[in-house]
Parts: sequence; C-alpha cells; structure tokens
Amino acid sequence: MKYLKIEAPFELENGGTLPELAVAYTAYGQLSPEKDNVVWIAHALTANADAAEWWPGLVGHGRLFDPDKYYIVCANMLGSSYGSTNPRSINPATSRPYGRDFPLITIRDMVRAHQLLRAHLGIERIRLAIGGSMGGQQVLEWAVMDPALFDNIAVLATNARHSPWGIAFNEAQRMAIEADPTLYTDGPDAGKAGLEAARAVAMLSYRNYRTYQVSQEEDDVSKLAGFKASSYQRYQGVKLQKRFDVLSYLSLSRSMDSHNLGRGRESVEAALGQVRANALVIGIQSDVLFPVEEQALIARFIPRAKLELIDSIYGHDGFLIEDEAISRLIRPFLEGRPRLNGKNKFILQERKNGFGYLATPALPGSESF
Amino acid sequence: MKYLKIEAPFELENGGTLPELAVAYTAYGQLSPEKDNVVWIAHALTANADAAEWWPGLVGHGRLFDPDKYYIVCANMLGSSYGSTNPRSINPATSRPYGRDFPLITIRDMVRAHQLLRAHLGIERIRLAIGGSMGGQQVLEWAVMDPALFDNIAVLATNARHSPWGIAFNEAQRMAIEADPTLYTDGPDAGKAGLEAARAVAMLSYRNYRTYQVSQEEDDVSKLAGFKASSYQRYQGVKLQKRFDVLSYLSLSRSMDSHNLGRGRESVEAALGQVRANALVIGIQSDVLFPVEEQALIARFIPRAKLELIDSIYGHDGFLIEDEAISRLIRPFLEGRPRLNGKNKFILQERKNGFGYLATPALPGSESF
Repeated sequence: MKYLKIEAPFELENGGTLPELAVAYTAYGQLSPEKDNVVWIAHALTANADAAEWWPGLVGHGRLFDPDKYYIVCANMLGSSYGSTNPRSINPATSRPYGRDFPLITIRDMVRAHQLLRAHLGIERIRLAIGGSMGGQQVLEWAVMDPALFDNIAVLATNARHSPWGIAFNEAQRMAIEADPTLYTDGPDAGKAGLEAARAVAMLSYRNYRTYQVSQEEDDVSKLAGFKASSYQRYQGVKLQKRFDVLSYLSLSRSMDSHNLGRGRESVEAALGQVRANALVIGIQSDVLFPVEEQALIARFIPRAKLELIDSIYGHDGFLIEDEAISRLIRPFLEGRPRLNGKNKFILQERKNGFGYLATPALPGSESF
Repeated sequence: MKYLKIEAPFELENGGTLPELAVAYTAYGQLSPEKDNVVWIAHALTANADAAEWWPGLVGHGRLFDPDKYYIVCANMLGSSYGSTNPRSINPATSRPYGRDFPLITIRDMVRAHQLLRAHLGIERIRLAIGGSMGGQQVLEWAVMDPALFDNIAVLATNARHSPWGIAFNEAQRMAIEADPTLYTDGPDAGKAGLEAARAVAMLSYRNYRTYQVSQEEDDVSKLAGFKASSYQRYQGVKLQKRFDVLSYLSLSRSMDSHNLGRGRESVEAALGQVRANALVIGIQSDVLFPVEEQALIARFIPRAKLELIDSIYGHDGFLIEDEAISRLIRPFLEGRPRLNGKNKFILQERKNGFGYLATPALPGSESF
C-alpha cells in the first residue's frame, strides 16, 4: 500500500474543509511509454485499495487485469478506514481524531481526491475505469466530471442516483449503529455491537431470498431455535466488525446516500449524456439493492453504452463473485473493440416480483464488500 | 377487549411451563343458534385482538366480516404485549415480570392457547379462519392440528415453514435490539432505540424498492443529506416503539422463526396434506418477505386449495392494504361456494429478479403489522 499525502486544505462539496489529505492506493504494473495502458479500479463500501485481494478473479497475473499488460491503480475512498483520511484520522486543528466531527464526504469529493492521485501518478488518459456498487457511483461521477479522461468505463450493479430504497437500507443500518451508545466512546468494543447489527442488515440487501434458501437451509427439522440463518447473520456481523471501523462505515454510508449525478446539473439524464467514454453497464438480475432498472437507465442515457445482465443467484454480491461472466463481458472493452449496437435499446421485461432463480452453485466462503 | 384467564399450568412445546395464562380477545356479533357463523381472525406480528382496528376494510358493519352476520373472534397471540401473557406479565413463581426469562413460545403454543379460548366460547365449528403473515402461520398450524374444526381457511402472504431469509431478517432485527444495552434495564426509554432500528429493518421487508420509490422519492435534488427515505425510517421506528413492547417483539420474532408445519411430522408437505378445510391461499406478487412461491407450495399440497395472487405495489403489507381484492377473493369461500378447480395447478413463471411493478396509488397513512 502506498500513500499520497497532501498537506494543503481540501475543500469539500458540503462547504467544509479537510486541512490535509491522505489517499491510500496500490499501483500494479508499469505505465507504458505511450501512457495508454491505465486501468483504474474503484472499490465498494467496505473494500480497500488492494483490488487483487477483493477481486482476485479479475486482478492479477493471467487475469483480465494483468499487471504484465496494464498499469492498474486502485485508490481507497476518502472516509474509508483502509488508509485514506477518515473519521479516525488526526485532525491537525485539534490534534485529536475527527470522530463525530468528520465532515460529510460526497462521491464527488472522493473523485476529486482521486484526481489528485491521478495527476501525481502522471496519468493523462485512462483506458478503462471500472467499479461496482459504490465504486460504480465514483466511476460515473468521474466520467461526468472529466469526460475526456476515459476511453472506456465499466460499471456494475450501480446507479446514477442513490434510491430511496438504498437510503432506507442505509438509514436502518445507521439506526442500529446509533442504538449502541458505546459508539463514540473509547473502549476496545466501542460501537461493535451496532456495526455487527448493521452488517447483518446489509447482508440482506447484498443477497436475496434464494441465496439464503440455498446456502442457509436448515438441515435439522426438529429445531425450535438456533437456526443456521441466525448464526450466519451473527458470523457476518462479527467478521466485518473485526476488519472495519464503525465511524468509517457511518461516514461512507452517508456518502453513498449523497450520490446524485443530477445534483447541480440539469438532470441525471443530462449528466449521463455528458459521458464520452464507451460504457459497459452490467446488472445482476437478482440484485435487490441496485435493481437492473437502475443500470438500464444508465445505459439508456450514456451516448455510447451497452447494457448487459448477468444471471446469478448472488444478488448484489454477484459483482464480486461472477468473475467469469464479468471478464467475458469486459474484455472487448478493454481491448478496444466494444460493440455498442443492439443491447442499448434493451427494454426490461415486466417483472412482477422477487428473486433470482438460477442454479449457480453456492460459494459460501465469499466475502461481501 | 376481553380476557380469558386460566390459573393452571400451560405446557409449552419447548418443554417449559407457564404457571398461568391470559388470552386477550374480541368477539363481535353473536354465535348463531346453529353455531355455524364463526369467523376466526389470527393477527400478525405487532397487531392486536381488535381486528376492526387493523383490518378496517374487512371487519365491520357493511364489510365482508360483518358482525350482523358473523360471530367474529380475534385473539391476541401468546407473547404479545397487547394483553395475552407476555414477557412483561408477572411470573407467579417470582412475583416479578418474566423479562428475559420468558420462555420460547412456538406457533403451536399460540394455537393451543386459542383452542382453550375456542372451547370457552362454545365454538365447535369455524366457518372461516383467516390470517396473513404470522396470522397465516397460526391458521395453517391450527388446520393441521385440528382438521375437522374448519370449513374454510384463508391464508395470505404466509408460509408453511419460516424461511432462512425470514429468519435472517428477524435475526438482524434482534441484533439491532440487542446492540442497545438498555434492553433489560428499567428506565422509561429502555430498549427503545434498538426497537426503533429493528422496525426500520422490518419495513424494508414489508415494502420493496418500488414502494419506496413511489412514496419516498426526493423532491429536492440539491440535498446532500436529510433525505425523505431516512426520515420515513426513523418515523416508522418511533411509531412502533410508542405502541409496542421490545421484549414482546423479541419473543414474537423467535416464535415466527420456529414456524415449521413439518416439525415432528413426516414433512411439511405431508402436514399440509392433512388439512381438510377448503383453503384459499393468497399471495402478494411484490412480497419480498413471503414470496409467492411459498404460497404456491401451500396451495399445491393442501388437497382442496386454490392459489390467488394479488398485484400490489405494497409488497408484504399488501395483505393489510388491498381490502377490495381480498374481499372479492374471500367472499365465495365465506359463502360456501368456493371454486377449487383450475388455479390449484398454477405453476409459477420463472421470475428473474425483483420487485412489484404496479401503479397502485400510494397510501402513506397505512400502518404495518
């Protein structure tokens, strides 16, 4: 992990200022003499700048994003506890951690911080920027803010404006976190029970009825309590709590809620119309949190775009798990021969209800980000 | 509200005993001389024994369940804070409230308590038993335990065994409640923040993406925070917290998880096969919590059953809101002329993902139970 540190004030969209800035990042491979081999990866809510760690099927030697061919950059989001400036960072004005005084960071602020890193690395052109979920929100925002920078973008399981449903899911999680009064205290377990509950809520949005049916079905039909699905929720809560900071989680969930490509612009649709890159927009059919109509909207209003849908039982988490399908869809974009005709006119069929229905085998060890 | 009080031990499925029992209930209308006009209503998680209050479109003069014609009984579930024995009741063994020592109450225990009330009221035959969600779980269990009692049953938005997904939703809520360490204390606000968070989580399962899209869409596109969907979640949390007890909520959510018609029987399917009543099984197309395949399974294995699906934007809450559609479907059953052919063979179309899609106008004042 490397760090770009800037000891100068960083103005935020909300009107506040960070007196100084750190951006954690990784860069794999070498920038080519033509400077035309940059792949920029934007990560999701609880992931980090080491894309090879959380996207191992896509990033690494012999993978689609191969450091032998590409200069692969991934930067930690502003607000994340994985190295960039976040609520536990020391506020130079007080010499203490920001804590609850950490300001609202918008997706645009995150992009502006990453633009500083881009300049620092001497990158003038990005062959492909890619991100899923909150990472996709950053890629879209960046492609609107700086249309000439990108040859191609690929966004997965994301949206152009965070939905009332997504905000409601985040708010329920914040309520669980705030129900734990140890949140702003200093003890070693401060805020942990609340974060565990929030993560259990989030899992419901990352997976779906069918995912739980397949992976958490109860074998013991005599049970009255202590069900497998309950243990799974608690396990997922503890697992996140051990690797992520609760104040950072709160901050990032507010950042996600603020996402709106249309803010201060004519409209969401007009903002999408400003994107110049070729755009591959990938939806997961069983995604409960970012349903495919959100990706259909993105593809409809970006001038050079293609919509692709992946069948997966994993719901939203499909963007982290369905490596093969994703690699197959992205390769033509990366290699500069995208076919943009046809699918852009895709009309979603009426969907009456529910859930993904496919027989992708369970992959219980996978981690959500 | 009336109360049946039984000062004798009540044995529970889990092996424990309640030293005494209270069952709160309402009875509207008169039992006919032929004793053939009984409608028994089973309520859902946070509702109460006054069915005219929470199902006003169905219960009352001029409604489908008219006290001028029917003897309408609704009893509060064991464990509920609306009058039946619950965690705040005094344990005669200690002269203090049960609190965290309140035993696990299963759906079968609830039914057995209501059987005592049925005998007390001199009811020997039930023309129609009806319930949605957790109320439907009770009706199904009762129809399996006492097949000869019922002429007709109608169950809505319910299941034969609670799903891993449903259990996971309940567990996430329990985690939020338990993240609030005031839970078992005595202060006036004890456990309230946790219950508010749990309710906000539950709302996500009662509604869906589309419901939030329609009712909580943000008008102010310049907003960075303070979104309508967030206020809605907090409002719903406070509203429930003011009318419901957190320990009762915990108890009932565990009762729901225990629901399994197949427990101690050959199988879920075989248990459904023991039902002798005509059965109307109603699903809500956009129900995220009890998806329609669960109702399809019920209808497939009850010998004399019909499946009907209601289009509604409200998701699971449709069973509380879609009065007209429900009345139209139930009337033939209540009047003794059900048509059971045809729809029982219904095969669900493959559903790839999502959400209800219909343009039912928003009804913001409706309450979830």
